[in-house]
Amino acid sequence: SRLISSTQNWFLLAAMGIMIGLIAGALNVITAWLGSIRVGHCSGNFYLSKAFCCWGQDEESCSGWSSWSTFGFLNYLIYVGISLFLSFTAAILVKTYATSAAGSGISEIKCIVSGFVMEGFLGWWTLLIKSIGLPLAIASGLSVGKEGPSVHYAVCVGNSIAKLVRKYRRSASKAREFLTATSAAGVAVAFGSPMGGVLFSIEEISSVFQLSTIWKSYFCSLVAVTTLAAMNPFRTGQLVLFEVTYDTNWHYFEIPLYIVIGIFGGIYGIVVSKFNIRVVAFRKKYLANFAVREVFILSLLTASFSYFNEYLRLDMTEAMQILFHECDSNFSHPICDPNSKKIPLLASLIFATVARMGLTIITYGCKVPAGIFVPSMAAGATFGRALGIIVDSYYQNHKDSFIFQNCSATGRCIIPGTYAFLGAAAGLSGITDLTVTVVIIMFELTGALRYIIPTMIVVAITKSINDKWGKGGIADQMIKFNGLPHIDAKEEFTFDTTVESAMSTVLVAFPSDPNEAITVEQLKSTLSKTKFRGYPVIHSSTNPKISGFVSRSEVELVVKNYEGVSNDTLCNFGSTNPTSASEVDFRSILNRSPLTINIDCPLEYVLEIFVKMGPRYILVEHEGVLVGIITRKDVLRYEYTLHSSHDVNAIQQSQ
Amino acid sequence: SRLISSTQNWFLLAAMGIMIGLIAGALNVITAWLGSIRVGHCSGNFYLSKAFCCWGQDEESCSGWSSWSTFGFLNYLIYVGISLFLSFTAAILVKTYATSAAGSGISEIKCIVSGFVMEGFLGWWTLLIKSIGLPLAIASGLSVGKEGPSVHYAVCVGNSIAKLVRKYRRSASKAREFLTATSAAGVAVAFGSPMGGVLFSIEEISSVFQLSTIWKSYFCSLVAVTTLAAMNPFRTGQLVLFEVTYDTNWHYFEIPLYIVIGIFGGIYGIVVSKFNIRVVAFRKKYLANFAVREVFILSLLTASFSYFNEYLRLDMTEAMQILFHECDSNFSHPICDPNSKKIPLLASLIFATVARMGLTIITYGCKVPAGIFVPSMAAGATFGRALGIIVDSYYQNHKDSFIFQNCSATGRCIIPGTYAFLGAAAGLSGITDLTVTVVIIMFELTGALRYIIPTMIVVAITKSINDKWGKGGIADQMIKFNGLPHIDAKEEFTFDTTVESAMSTVLVAFPSDPNEAITVEQLKSTLSKTKFRGYPVIHSSTNPKISGFVSRSEVELVVKNYEGVSNDTLCNFGSTNPTSASEVDFRSILNRSPLTINIDCPLEYVLEIFVKMGPRYILVEHEGVLVGIITRKDVLRYEYTLHSSHDVNAIQQSQ
Repeated sequence: SRLISSTQNWFLLAAMGIMIGLIAGALNVITAWLGSIRVGHCSGNFYLSKAFCCWGQDEESCSGWSSWSTFGFLNYLIYVGISLFLSFTAAILVKTYATSAAGSGISEIKCIVSGFVMEGFLGWWTLLIKSIGLPLAIASGLSVGKEGPSVHYAVCVGNSIAKLVRKYRRSASKAREFLTATSAAGVAVAFGSPMGGVLFSIEEISSVFQLSTIWKSYFCSLVAVTTLAAMNPFRTGQLVLFEVTYDTNWHYFEIPLYIVIGIFGGIYGIVVSKFNIRVVAFRKKYLANFAVREVFILSLLTASFSYFNEYLRLDMTEAMQILFHECDSNFSHPICDPNSKKIPLLASLIFATVARMGLTIITYGCKVPAGIFVPSMAAGATFGRALGIIVDSYYQNHKDSFIFQNCSATGRCIIPGTYAFLGAAAGLSGITDLTVTVVIIMFELTGALRYIIPTMIVVAITKSINDKWGKGGIADQMIKFNGLPHIDAKEEFTFDTTVESAMSTVLVAFPSDPNEAITVEQLKSTLSKTKFRGYPVIHSSTNPKISGFVSRSEVELVVKNYEGVSNDTLCNFGSTNPTSASEVDFRSILNRSPLTINIDCPLEYVLEIFVKMGPRYILVEHEGVLVGIITRKDVLRYEYTLHSSHDVNAIQQSQ
Repeated sequence: SRLISSTQNWFLLAAMGIMIGLIAGALNVITAWLGSIRVGHCSGNFYLSKAFCCWGQDEESCSGWSSWSTFGFLNYLIYVGISLFLSFTAAILVKTYATSAAGSGISEIKCIVSGFVMEGFLGWWTLLIKSIGLPLAIASGLSVGKEGPSVHYAVCVGNSIAKLVRKYRRSASKAREFLTATSAAGVAVAFGSPMGGVLFSIEEISSVFQLSTIWKSYFCSLVAVTTLAAMNPFRTGQLVLFEVTYDTNWHYFEIPLYIVIGIFGGIYGIVVSKFNIRVVAFRKKYLANFAVREVFILSLLTASFSYFNEYLRLDMTEAMQILFHECDSNFSHPICDPNSKKIPLLASLIFATVARMGLTIITYGCKVPAGIFVPSMAAGATFGRALGIIVDSYYQNHKDSFIFQNCSATGRCIIPGTYAFLGAAAGLSGITDLTVTVVIIMFELTGALRYIIPTMIVVAITKSINDKWGKGGIADQMIKFNGLPHIDAKEEFTFDTTVESAMSTVLVAFPSDPNEAITVEQLKSTLSKTKFRGYPVIHSSTNPKISGFVSRSEVELVVKNYEGVSNDTLCNFGSTNPTSASEVDFRSILNRSPLTINIDCPLEYVLEIFVKMGPRYILVEHEGVLVGIITRKDVLRYEYTLHSSHDVNAIQQSQ
């Protein structure tokens, strides 16, 4: 049966991977079509996106593709109109059918994986609405990315498929590995980066670290990405919309410039998350009932002024493709034209950076499916390219300077595209506070093997700045801001008190001494009056030594089995000499060795036990006598009362 | 002071990274020179290796480089003679100065990082001898790699530098993060793969998982690799000896072939580790006193018959460079010649695979610095190339088959080099049982972005086979075989018993009741008669409730402070009403809330506590009364008595 169970697990994982891959492929195609329909249509083949319509031709001089009108201003109005329609539809869908499909979802998934329950957050409805709303939101041109939502729909797939199997429906903790594994697949299909996905699930999502979980993430990512590759949604045989390779090596004199990019990433992360939290607070307070109207206005704002800047108008992935590009003979874009005026180009890039930051700050968290990864990368990329162009023009004017003595005389020395690439890494790392994951994702996006050291340097600088002045990744900040119940397993804690400060006193405990045995009626009344998920069992009220612990659900099950018995029947919670033959026997469900700690135990250590061992509760004793009980919720409540005044009533713990 | 401490940590890590990078650079240069001196010398510039001597020229027609003699057989004798001399020197050095410098060292490092002490294993002497012995052993042509030893010398650097600081000299647990971080740097410099190093430290070395440790590994790897890159030991600007890129995409019909390669990897891992363990057992039993002679004979055997096969004679990295290569116009090697006879080529490759396996089985574990990663990759590469050549020749003869319909008509379809590349991944994964690390290392070695899915498929198949029929990676098998004390934190455990079966009964406990207080003389006698690292404190012998725990070292410190007192003075272990004014007070060192569990607690859970929480001991109680004590050593002893009959007296636990 162990073999069957293990085989079943792999089948489930494969099914999840395939479904995630199929959804991702479909979304890619739909997003591309919706995005291009804003600027025109394919004559005769209305269902083709611009890229497919102009297949094999240059997009500029493509014969099949027509703009909506020959009149520029009308085109502009249609562009804005369709954008508004798309975002409006997404907002309506989210509001009507699944409010939990709004936003990115990563914060909530972290909490769920760490052991808390949020009803419906990972259900079929959320999956459906997130999958439909995501392409609408992205194609509408809002400053949102697909990575967070991809993780969310992937985890929905994992949860929904796991729940089809009885044993996972009953135990949330067993299903958790599937959630981690599918989160890896979500990132994998979003970025076309299977290893990046695995590392994301390790570094960001998983709360405990087990090799078996990594191996499941790996497998699920691989299946999802292979499915996506087999669907070949871009018809280029590639997993990502673009692939860049750099042939030139970097130089040591560029390291200070990499440090500048890293500093930008750190500042970007700190500024955007700080102001975004303020916007979210404002939205929560004043805009809660105007979600659709808010999206409408955001979309209007974004579409109407993005139209006039190339890097804002284009889909962010397409913009990055241009920005990352090395200027060579195969690539004829104004950005590479050596004769073009540098100042307007720079102004355009810097404007795009600032505008992207502003749009991201006001957009992230609005009520459509919305990720923040890609906008952050896009902002970093425009900044990086601007810096690269400045450095390159300095080089062109000072070729004989001793700084540039290592540049090869014939070839190019400064590749502005690599600065854009590193800027994207800095932006991503700045907003997420991730390191290893970012390096691997950037690496898989571009295969820029030669640039691994620069990427690592940039990310290290960004991370240092975030550690020193920032408050962690945006997902963690959102968790704190929303008062979500989450203890980060991978960080260290400092409390300066003992468990006594945070524990709850025991209100109800069942006696095991037959002389004090309670009746079924008393038990039922206790069950209906209290909502605890379990009850300690003590020896007797005069000798309250710990005898064990019973969980509520199991007590209810036993009571149900004895349904016919009289209400006066006594309950046996562990006594070896029964008082009457007709007692209700709870001994089989009694956990005789519950986790117990001394009342003098430091709270820090208790937290560590919760995080690393994952128990539901710990009994607190003093010389063997029960004096209290502590749950994760107690620790969190204590932490919140200590640090802030957030709503802790929303906290609901699983198991 | 917190800031200073943190700054100090980063300085230490940077110092470690720089030192590791410098050593790695020096070793690369020395190894290349020693390796090429076996076949000839550079006229006029004796100190140059063949690659530097022939810089800018074709190595075949290089004017500066001369063979030792014009007479072929004499060359052969000189080749064998120098090989023997090199390996002999390495063996003598290891035997005379640092026996712990033998072998790979990864198994032992895993144990040390998980909390056990091995005196001298990570000292300056080991560092010195490992660094000198490694190039000698590799250049001698023995079937050994440099990765395991690189990790070992890197961790020696980490340990030795950390020990220069007082606080890390005193606390092994605090120094442990440095060991993990430097192990990452070790792999990073050996493979030129900084991210692979980080993942190696996560997947293989670290016993608990904390983001701060990952971040330290990342930083240390980055510094080490940047130092190595700045030294530029190969003068190619590259971190690895070779860089391969593939321009052609893979095809779906190749997946079954990738599965074959994956199966090879699994079989390779299982066969090599199984027979290697037997050879190691034989060596331990019969060859313990003949370590140098054994190395001499191994070297004679290897050198004398490797000379006649190109893939065995060459340095393994050079051989892999050739094997990985795509056949194009820039690469004129017999392996790519379309007119060459396929049968002798195949025979040569298959012979090299089998011989490499045999040599690795008998060599790994001999008394010179020796890793098994690169030999495994080399064996996989020859196998993969052979398979690739077979498939390619089938394709050449059946171009019209429907299988090959997706091959582009003009270009090449089957790239045998990619099969060699995937074979190397399979070999590496088969022997180490690692997944994520292997994919990232292969990726960083070659930048083969397009081949990430095939690599993942191959590694997944290898891993599945290992999981089903193998016994884990060679490092873990060596740990078990040698009876080293190690609990793998990342695996799940199954014991079907309670803590009672494995715990020790308490032989000595100090009473806190003043009426039973022991005298200083009694205490001293107890300390000298027993070797425990700590003692429980109970209420009194008639009421043995747990009062706390004192550690031996702190008790000794208190005793030392009270040196002048009479031997009749009573000891106070926690009483609040002292019996006499002149008592020796141990209350300040008493841990009043030691970790305690119930005697009915499952042993599995206890093991989980040890692994995840890392306590030194757990007290076992029944209704508040002390009934036993359990340490990691007890759990391991129980496991060993259950599973095998290894020597458990060698186990020594830290802290």
